[in-house]
Amino acid sequence: MVRMWLNEPLSFGGQAAAPATPRQPRLSAATAPLTRSIEVVDEYGQRRSIRIPAERPLTVYVDKRELVTLMTLGAHPEWLVLGYLRNQRLVTSLDDIESITVDWDVGAAAVRTRGGLPDLEARTAQRVVTTGCGQGSVFGSLMDALDGITLSPDARLRQSQLYGILRAVREQDSTYKQAGSVHGCALFRGEELLLFVEDVGRHNAIDTIAGWMWLQGGELLRGDDKVFYTTGRLTSEMIIKAAQMGVPIVVSRSGTTQMGLEVAERMGLCAIGRATHTRFLCYTHPQRLVWDTPPP
Amino acid sequence: MVRMWLNEPLSFGGQAAAPATPRQPRLSAATAPLTRSIEVVDEYGQRRSIRIPAERPLTVYVDKRELVTLMTLGAHPEWLVLGYLRNQRLVTSLDDIESITVDWDVGAAAVRTRGGLPDLEARTAQRVVTTGCGQGSVFGSLMDALDGITLSPDARLRQSQLYGILRAVREQDSTYKQAGSVHGCALFRGEELLLFVEDVGRHNAIDTIAGWMWLQGGELLRGDDKVFYTTGRLTSEMIIKAAQMGVPIVVSRSGTTQMGLEVAERMGLCAIGRATHTRFLCYTHPQRLVWDTPPP
Repeated sequence: MVRMWLNEPLSFGGQAAAPATPRQPRLSAATAPLTRSIEVVDEYGQRRSIRIPAERPLTVYVDKRELVTLMTLGAHPEWLVLGYLRNQRLVTSLDDIESITVDWDVGAAAVRTRGGLPDLEARTAQRVVTTGCGQGSVFGSLMDALDGITLSPDARLRQSQLYGILRAVREQDSTYKQAGSVHGCALFRGEELLLFVEDVGRHNAIDTIAGWMWLQGGELLRGDDKVFYTTGRLTSEMIIKAAQMGVPIVVSRSGTTQMGLEVAERMGLCAIGRATHTRFLCYTHPQRLVWDTPPP
Repeated sequence: MVRMWLNEPLSFGGQAAAPATPRQPRLSAATAPLTRSIEVVDEYGQRRSIRIPAERPLTVYVDKRELVTLMTLGAHPEWLVLGYLRNQRLVTSLDDIESITVDWDVGAAAVRTRGGLPDLEARTAQRVVTTGCGQGSVFGSLMDALDGITLSPDARLRQSQLYGILRAVREQDSTYKQAGSVHGCALFRGEELLLFVEDVGRHNAIDTIAGWMWLQGGELLRGDDKVFYTTGRLTSEMIIKAAQMGVPIVVSRSGTTQMGLEVAERMGLCAIGRATHTRFLCYTHPQRLVWDTPPP
């Protein structure tokens, strides 16, 4: 599989490469096929060929110490690892990371830090097994992080922009359309699509976006003018991760859970679910939504 | 919230109580509301009342030592904890467990063992963060467990039985129909529904079934004549957990992932996906499926 070095942030189909900021971590640009063709037998007993998404283990080593194994589609492994470290609050400054090298031949991501990560042991000791579609693992007490976060009280989204977001997602070419069985997440500024990411795990997708934002820095790192879209349910971890990124408005094609709702309410985050075409439900903080375009 | 003691396995609406086996663990029967009503604002700016599923943290203590916190709907917390311990291979014999006491007032499940669990520390040290809808945590190397497992080579399912299974699931009264945002899992013998479980996390749902099977013992603990149904994707962990329960046929309303497919192929497990009404795709080991009822 292809490996190379980049001296500036990876650019992404459709997105412009962002200006390099000082002391950017060196990132490999590992690539691997995102789907594969398999043969199945249908309800008529007929053999058919379909595509399914790839799923591959990626074991993250921080300064040669094994941290975790992520199962991922593999579209943006370096951003995923970076965002994972950021969202788990294992790394607080991009500056602390010298390089991330992903090698699919061995399914490993080698993270080299500048001067090590303080008390990594302690921080990864506590486990909270959360919803996701099951028992998603969130290290440390992520909820604690929320106390330090205040989302911009002024952030607003117009209904017309929301419809623009839903249109952009519908029109996005995707692995889902080819192979199904992946979650999509997207970062918007108003209705402008900045980044669309898919993964077999939706937490990977949001972590990948977090990693990308961190790399871009500047205006793109700001959360207060951004909107986060996910195909997955608005579980507590999804809301927490959006809040950690400073994003005050989250839109989902799916519904919410009680914990997700409680966290969104508490954080002042506007959670919008069941959003398809012209339909949606605003679960929390409707003051952030401007009903300027009632559906026909 | 209600708490009481049972001296025999919990029975479940629609299922008959199973015969008590010797040295059954004492289980509390903690109950809590499964849905709650919330007010939302729809696309017309109109306030509406909808129901959402409950989601509550349940911290599991084994002999007063904190093990993990599960986020759950809360329908069958004692079976969930039991199945979690079983599927994580932290407990190998039902006999090792004296009691499981769930108290929703404090969100705690107190597991008392007979003589402690050997090297619990070591077994929970390794983390693999897996797909689920995100970063589901599977302690230890679950894959290792597979080497010890051989699924019955003779297990078969007729297409007519598969359609019976899909009909039973469609007709099942469910939290999903009321509130959405939950996963459903079910255990079948042929097309006979034995247990239907929903949870905010599908891993919780399958763990709950595993716990229930363990309690029932005898014919109901056997996996080889059972079929496992899930609304969720056939990820590797789902296939692994079904295989651990000795269940050779798994049916999903959703699709599969590459790892799920690879594990099913390797285990001789018949994985059927995209199954709704008369449609389905058989991903692996089609020899287990008897095409006796082609759709009209």
